[in-house]
Amino acid sequence: MPQIVPILDPADPRIADYRDIRERDLVGRRGLFVAEGRVVLNVLVTSPRCTPVSLLVAEHRLPTLDDILDRLGDAVPVYAAAQPVLDAIAGFPLHRGLLALGRRTDTPEADALLAGLPADDDVLLLSAIANHDNMGGLFRNAAAFGVGAVLLDADCCDPLYRKAIRVSVGAALRVPYAVLPRDIDALALLERHGFAPLALSPAGAQELADLAPPPRAAVILGAEGPGLSPALLARTTSVRIDMEAGFDSLNVATTGGIVLHHLAAARRARNAIAHPAL
Amino acid sequence: MPQIVPILDPADPRIADYRDIRERDLVGRRGLFVAEGRVVLNVLVTSPRCTPVSLLVAEHRLPTLDDILDRLGDAVPVYAAAQPVLDAIAGFPLHRGLLALGRRTDTPEADALLAGLPADDDVLLLSAIANHDNMGGLFRNAAAFGVGAVLLDADCCDPLYRKAIRVSVGAALRVPYAVLPRDIDALALLERHGFAPLALSPAGAQELADLAPPPRAAVILGAEGPGLSPALLARTTSVRIDMEAGFDSLNVATTGGIVLHHLAAARRARNAIAHPAL
Repeated sequence: MPQIVPILDPADPRIADYRDIRERDLVGRRGLFVAEGRVVLNVLVTSPRCTPVSLLVAEHRLPTLDDILDRLGDAVPVYAAAQPVLDAIAGFPLHRGLLALGRRTDTPEADALLAGLPADDDVLLLSAIANHDNMGGLFRNAAAFGVGAVLLDADCCDPLYRKAIRVSVGAALRVPYAVLPRDIDALALLERHGFAPLALSPAGAQELADLAPPPRAAVILGAEGPGLSPALLARTTSVRIDMEAGFDSLNVATTGGIVLHHLAAARRARNAIAHPAL
Repeated sequence: MPQIVPILDPADPRIADYRDIRERDLVGRRGLFVAEGRVVLNVLVTSPRCTPVSLLVAEHRLPTLDDILDRLGDAVPVYAAAQPVLDAIAGFPLHRGLLALGRRTDTPEADALLAGLPADDDVLLLSAIANHDNMGGLFRNAAAFGVGAVLLDADCCDPLYRKAIRVSVGAALRVPYAVLPRDIDALALLERHGFAPLALSPAGAQELADLAPPPRAAVILGAEGPGLSPALLARTTSVRIDMEAGFDSLNVATTGGIVLHHLAAARRARNAIAHPAL
């Protein structure tokens, strides 16, 4: 069991990394990230891709945390503070009463990551996704539909920012990902590993519903508004989602969910034909 | 052309309804709503379901607003303020520099709304959606896939809150909707108008991909977490979306997008078989 360390003073240096988390959300923490709430903490203590560094909890919540505390090593301190002290540390009313610092331990290179995936896994390639809500939503959908890995180009925001982790419901701590160097030819990388590139665009050549899933796909999504570059679209199968005339506007995370559901459902249907139940 | 009214003092009573919009977001404004940004303002001035009451803009943006101003009646005042005055009025840095007050003019009863829809329109029925991001996302998806109307039960939040409108990219001002009285039997109402109820649930009896779309569907979505009541599910076709074991968690707006895309695509495929191109 971990040690419970009472914190009486918001200025205690032992909880410095938790201080004013809203303001510091964008400045980074030497490779650490902040996780909030029970669902996300549960992923943090179970995922093989990250490790908890410490917890900071409202002392009245301690009795409800046995399942999480049981999974912590003895060396992980659990700081416990009264709610007003906790609020003063965080810089806002922290109703959930549960914070943790974590460190990502699984930081693969893209090449090694793709090489290690099962033969039928799909991947997501995200380009210039700068909004943390969208990043979190995309990871959530990637986890829900069993995507093998997420590749982020150099213009994406960090999926381990507090808000992205929260919106992902912990998926950002669970789905393997790699950040691509700026000068890499991402399509050549995908091709080397046998991923068929499906690039989403409102002007895509093929409607999603008509798309027969390739053996393994790389679903490529760009930022809402600018979208993907014409140079990239020209080298891929460009895919569109037909929408109502006059309102052709889908959120990028929703788009990802629709595409991943289509691929999963179409593969299931194909497998059912190839291997009918006896 | 509307009159341009310079505003020099953040305390000017003429712009009282714009003051501290963040704090007042949840208190209502006597039937008025706040719209932000060019895309949403464009819907506000073109949608037949609402009308602009006034605009408040950063004076340096005035020269870029001809397309919007041209659509305003002479009686709609356009208040123009220097950026610092605008920020002081709004209560935070208003980078977009574009606000409007609007009033919804189309407030149908659910019965009349459903009676007036085209024979092949689907509808959404939302139950206890209390999160404004999700509400906005659901309206955005409803507009993108041409849903005829949205019905809200008495436990839903208001789609005309500032943030819901913004997240909807204006769809909340465009898609017809009605709020149901608390004691109404919503399923009986839908049945009277010939809508087949499809209730989404992680434990749904039928997988979405196998669902043949009914002539007109009512897609029913509940809040993440509690979901729809067993009593309601027992009276409907319950539909699930298969997900990865250990992470069966989709955002409710994303779920709506996936379902609406499936219905639209399956209908298109059926129509292509019934009426093949010559």
